[in-house]
Amino acid sequence: MNDIESRISSSFFAQGLMKTLGATLMSVSEGEVRISLPFSAALSQQQGFAHAGVITSIVDNACGYAALTKAPEGHDVVTAEFKVNFLRPAIGTSFLAVGKVVNAGRLLTVCTGEVFAIGDAQSAPKLIAVMQATIATVSSKA
Amino acid sequence: MNDIESRISSSFFAQGLMKTLGATLMSVSEGEVRISLPFSAALSQQQGFAHAGVITSIVDNACGYAALTKAPEGHDVVTAEFKVNFLRPAIGTSFLAVGKVVNAGRLLTVCTGEVFAIGDAQSAPKLIAVMQATIATVSSKA
Amino acid sequence: MNDIESRISSSFFAQGLMKTLGATLMSVSEGEVRISLPFSAALSQQQGFAHAGVITSIVDNACGYAALTKAPEGHDVVTAEFKVNFLRPAIGTSFLAVGKVVNAGRLLTVCTGEVFAIGDAQSAPKLIAVMQATIATVSSKA
Amino acid sequence: MNDIESRISSSFFAQGLMKTLGATLMSVSEGEVRISLPFSAALSQQQGFAHAGVITSIVDNACGYAALTKAPEGHDVVTAEFKVNFLRPAIGTSFLAVGKVVNAGRLLTVCTGEVFAIGDAQSAPKLIAVMQATIATVSSKA
Repeated sequence: MNDIESRISSSFFAQGLMKTLGATLMSVSEGEVRISLPFSAALSQQQGFAHAGVITSIVDNACGYAALTKAPEGHDVVTAEFKVNFLRPAIGTSFLAVGKVVNAGRLLTVCTGEVFAIGDAQSAPKLIAVMQATIATVSSKA
Repeated sequence: MNDIESRISSSFFAQGLMKTLGATLMSVSEGEVRISLPFSAALSQQQGFAHAGVITSIVDNACGYAALTKAPEGHDVVTAEFKVNFLRPAIGTSFLAVGKVVNAGRLLTVCTGEVFAIGDAQSAPKLIAVMQATIATVSSKA
Repeated sequence: MNDIESRISSSFFAQGLMKTLGATLMSVSEGEVRISLPFSAALSQQQGFAHAGVITSIVDNACGYAALTKAPEGHDVVTAEFKVNFLRPAIGTSFLAVGKVVNAGRLLTVCTGEVFAIGDAQSAPKLIAVMQATIATVSSKA
Repeated sequence: MNDIESRISSSFFAQGLMKTLGATLMSVSEGEVRISLPFSAALSQQQGFAHAGVITSIVDNACGYAALTKAPEGHDVVTAEFKVNFLRPAIGTSFLAVGKVVNAGRLLTVCTGEVFAIGDAQSAPKLIAVMQATIATVSSKA
């Protein structure tokens, strides 16, 4: 692991929520981060599908960490805001969130995210949600 | 409990995620729903505050159920999209999400949501996040 | 006019677009700005109603200038992003946009905006659009 | 021109605002529409750059018409909501808005839009804004 991978990996493991949800950091590359989440009933909304808040949680992290790959040393990122469109019910055995940097500014980085539902081996992953997010770059306190 | 309260209450209890997070349905009135969530380390982001995805989960539900109070009988609601601004770190012993209907259309209902962080008895609740959401009204399958 | 009113008024008059659209700065108070726009066919979409882009233009300005009332001296504001929900067709003889500050941070100010359609003397103004916007505070280039 | 091109072209010409702004419909293909706009001082914000509302107007149209290429016959589209991030100042001699369909549902179509600033022949077009929009498909009246 290089520096930024190890830093994002440490941050990911420090998140209580990612453990609670059962999410895994899949890959980190410059400007792009992938997070995977197996479905379980503990993550459901009222119809038994994955809750919009769960889908949002993993794609928010994917976008935030994608932004972090572009942040200067000694800086951290915080989500200023995001918008998510839900395209179809979150039905799958697992979900893959992909966050990508669209533009990295000095103060604000804009990312887009996609979430795919993965079912059985026969069916292709389905795009179920798209995010557009604004991530603020802040000086690390330490 | 009247009909709509009992329907929303049943739906809330059917959500695995609300149990996983530890959230409570606080109140239901026409066009407004409140949900409360005590903080725990299982809900944290990397700095130990509540994760944006957790805050989003409860205010998404508050908005969705507020929309449901306005839906005609035989109809259900699904979140089409939302946008959330995070105003300050989600630091508190508990969080209160308030969802309100701005406009209930035939197909789409627009809601706004607010999330407040509640600390010790000495300090006033602080507004930490605001949502603007589009909820689709769909015919119940049954 | 006090300082901030006169500064916003000058800025408003410097906008070619506001003149092109025919918009008027109605009022400026701390954290709230109102802009009015008479309808004309030059502002229409294909069905003859006011175009979403026109409605957005005036409420973006109302939000941006509301944020400016909270900015420290020597600073200007730029719109980082906004989201607008359109609640009903923009039909009216004029439109009133109201922008309000929800939270003024050091770097980012979050505002909400509302646009009302005003018809004949008999009918009440109708809420036709709501905005949630993020405005960045930047140092003025002198 | 095929049917959908001619229908979108007619609709575009029926928009008073596109004429007021000076915008041109550049291309229509299945799921993608491009609109061009030369800059003029009549479209400026206070610093002399193109106003966010102008940029939004053309990319809203590009997204809406992209959605229309996917709508069943006898149906029209209306913008339910959109979100726009502004990445850098809108400085250019002209602007190109590209709208693309991400997912076409029965009731709601989700599109993404990009706006590029075009300068002199030496410099590459710059991405200045990105949109994520929800377009409702409605039955045509008449």
